[in-house]
Amino acid sequence: MTSQAPTPAYRRLSVEERRSQLLEAALSLFAHRAPEEVSLDDVAEAAGVSRPLVYRYFPGGKQQLYEAALKSAADELRDCFDEPEEGPLLPRLTRAVERYLAFVGRHDAGFSALLQGGSVVETSRTTAIVDGVRRAAAEHILRHLGVEEPGPRLRMTIRMWITAVEAASLIWLDEDKQPPLEELRDWLVEQFVAVLTVTARRDAQTDTLVQALAADL
Amino acid sequence: MTSQAPTPAYRRLSVEERRSQLLEAALSLFAHRAPEEVSLDDVAEAAGVSRPLVYRYFPGGKQQLYEAALKSAADELRDCFDEPEEGPLLPRLTRAVERYLAFVGRHDAGFSALLQGGSVVETSRTTAIVDGVRRAAAEHILRHLGVEEPGPRLRMTIRMWITAVEAASLIWLDEDKQPPLEELRDWLVEQFVAVLTVTARRDAQTDTLVQALAADL
Repeated sequence: MTSQAPTPAYRRLSVEERRSQLLEAALSLFAHRAPEEVSLDDVAEAAGVSRPLVYRYFPGGKQQLYEAALKSAADELRDCFDEPEEGPLLPRLTRAVERYLAFVGRHDAGFSALLQGGSVVETSRTTAIVDGVRRAAAEHILRHLGVEEPGPRLRMTIRMWITAVEAASLIWLDEDKQPPLEELRDWLVEQFVAVLTVTARRDAQTDTLVQALAADL
Repeated sequence: MTSQAPTPAYRRLSVEERRSQLLEAALSLFAHRAPEEVSLDDVAEAAGVSRPLVYRYFPGGKQQLYEAALKSAADELRDCFDEPEEGPLLPRLTRAVERYLAFVGRHDAGFSALLQGGSVVETSRTTAIVDGVRRAAAEHILRHLGVEEPGPRLRMTIRMWITAVEAASLIWLDEDKQPPLEELRDWLVEQFVAVLTVTARRDAQTDTLVQALAADL
């Protein structure tokens, strides 16, 4: 009775594609419901595949799938920060923020789930995944700024800005992605410069950086 | 065998004082351990009282105590924002931030527990308590600024700043309350002005506010 031609949902995917598809489906489901309310059947249905297929990829079941989904999103998010260390600094940051916001827009509820780490099923492992991304973001910024030993004021400023960017992303999703990505991107980068400038008033290391940023433009 | 004179831990407290003492003890315990690892015996011991006394105040047991502890901290935090609507705006914000930081410093781990809502036992009720405080903070700021209908850019800016302040508070606790409270306070207020100024470049409502703030000084 089954047709010879595969249905779109069952079209032949590579192992990696299939895995990504399952992870994406899982992340969306976990974003909206507590894990105990998500069954592997739901994930299979959302991905348009059979339950045994989900098990074949994730023999550890739901917890394994959940953690793999978070980890995969976290890895993709880290990739956003990858930017060659060449050219003026602010355009580099602008490009990274643009990729980050595109990621946020693409994953939507999945992004909220990731950030909340997930709010519904936080474990020390999931929290570590999200904190790892935040740490990676801060390290990328410091590397691009050429700072090897950031003082506490500079470090705090960067962590505060990263948190503010996360908050902005969640609000942005809530507000149907308004303002447009390009405006939000530039706005966030300008805020970065503005808060560094405030810190520069009380921190020599940051002051040097702000002057370098200004000269670099 | 019991001495007539009450021991310091058992000294006679008013109902309200005793309740506060139990809530404070509970908040500190929940800050460090998952609720399933905290027993009412632990709370009684931390507060230096008997287990039946804890039950007398919180007949609903641990969950009631936990929620009451969060709610009490949230109420106290809200009180920090109370500031008469008179005099220049930035000194008002400065005083509110100072009270807030004093609260953070006083509660320490309990503050982290509150903010994390608690990270260890998040429920929709506990999340609502914390979100309520954040909302109250934003509303206070808007009222002081005299804004009745904030546009999305102004609202987003204020929410981002509130998130950044929360992040700063947690980092501050992690770093043994460095920099000193007064420096952090002024730094945060200056950041508020700086991010509003960035938003003013693309938002007429915020621009009017920033001009009023500058004139007010």
